[in-house]
Amino acid sequence: MAALAQAERYPPLVERAEAAGRFVLVCEHASNAVPARWGDLGLTAEARRAHIAWDPGALALSQALSQRLEAVLIHAPVSRLVYDCNRPPDQASAMPAQSEVYAIPGNAVISPLERRLRTEAVYLPWAEALHGLIARRLALGLRPVMVTLHSFTPIYNGKPRRVELGVIHDADAHFAVAVQTAASKLTRLNVQLNAPYSAADGVTHTLRVQATPYGVPNVMLEVRNDLIATPEQIVQMADQLAAVLNMGLVEIQRQAKAS
Amino acid sequence: MAALAQAERYPPLVERAEAAGRFVLVCEHASNAVPARWGDLGLTAEARRAHIAWDPGALALSQALSQRLEAVLIHAPVSRLVYDCNRPPDQASAMPAQSEVYAIPGNAVISPLERRLRTEAVYLPWAEALHGLIARRLALGLRPVMVTLHSFTPIYNGKPRRVELGVIHDADAHFAVAVQTAASKLTRLNVQLNAPYSAADGVTHTLRVQATPYGVPNVMLEVRNDLIATPEQIVQMADQLAAVLNMGLVEIQRQAKAS
Repeated sequence: MAALAQAERYPPLVERAEAAGRFVLVCEHASNAVPARWGDLGLTAEARRAHIAWDPGALALSQALSQRLEAVLIHAPVSRLVYDCNRPPDQASAMPAQSEVYAIPGNAVISPLERRLRTEAVYLPWAEALHGLIARRLALGLRPVMVTLHSFTPIYNGKPRRVELGVIHDADAHFAVAVQTAASKLTRLNVQLNAPYSAADGVTHTLRVQATPYGVPNVMLEVRNDLIATPEQIVQMADQLAAVLNMGLVEIQRQAKAS
Repeated sequence: MAALAQAERYPPLVERAEAAGRFVLVCEHASNAVPARWGDLGLTAEARRAHIAWDPGALALSQALSQRLEAVLIHAPVSRLVYDCNRPPDQASAMPAQSEVYAIPGNAVISPLERRLRTEAVYLPWAEALHGLIARRLALGLRPVMVTLHSFTPIYNGKPRRVELGVIHDADAHFAVAVQTAASKLTRLNVQLNAPYSAADGVTHTLRVQATPYGVPNVMLEVRNDLIATPEQIVQMADQLAAVLNMGLVEIQRQAKAS
């Protein structure tokens, strides 16, 4: 069970590593890049550009928020079709054979050794970097707050989705509830708690592993991707969400003082 | 927030790394070694040999169990007085200023930068190695089961303790209950659930971070250290606990099939 050589590992990218703000921004599905080792996974170029390969707009939104909140940002460099960093290594959805209406031929049959190889190449560097980032900030007394940033497709399996901003929590809901309340006050978006996904769908792995066990307040945000498709939309959404997250933070700081 | 040089990191030791058995044995308090950087922490040699610095007997017991169960074993190479790997970096008890009746002068005042340095030197290499070990086994379909091994002092703050084997759980109790039941059937030990400590005392950090979020069955065992003070006692206790753990494993496998 020796580790892979460093050259075969795909560590995440970290921006504003030294930022002292409380927010830690996390973007698991930032990239649709497929390293040469995995070819094209048997997909057309169109499929590799689609939402199954990544969360379109999520990285640009995360970067705009990182700037506005003076917050560190960590994002994955590889498509979730190679390894979905928001899933544990023993779940089929970590290397999905099917995503929405698309079959992924390169993932149709994956041996245990190939599962381990992808875990070592993508998931472990990701998990170690994020864990180290949180642990160092805990040690320094910076009291991190985790925000994971995702986008979702407006039409899924042929059905339109009305929700525009999903606010999703795992076991510790307190920051998510504060963010949902702030978003309903400050924006005209259709804001829903635990939509279009919830923890029951297995989408809160990062929160569950990296935030909740350390008592780090956390939330997962899902933005409908037709609302962050242009640079102008990114600016507008980032302005709104920066205000929402700051209001949510003020609220949990108030709660902490009152308790 | 650059990482420490490799030379200043103290990675854990792994034995039987390739073992294919389901058990993953974990010994956070295996060593009382204090690297030169931290001198003697202001303690006498006697204090550095006492239970405050490590869990006497726990490593020998873990190694004997690793042999009997054909199980991988991971153990920390540094005293818990430098960094207690079973605590998160933002808790005072990770680098305690006081332990039972002993004051730790070298820990009386620890700056945020020193907390970060010890976190990077001891905690991160530990957490990354254990996480990698679990993740690789999950990827391979080996369905790991985590057992952390500790010892406790028979007299604490002047009071004798009657419990001989403590079986402690975090949020997921199912394997701990199976182990407690097996220990009560197979041994004449005074077996108690969640004694002499429980999750409420903050002692289940490893289980909470490394096992529960992955759905890995887990238990923390605490053995009174006067029962594992000689090589003969180690053999006797390891024989008993190997049988107990195997019976507990059979029980949760039965439950998994029935559900």
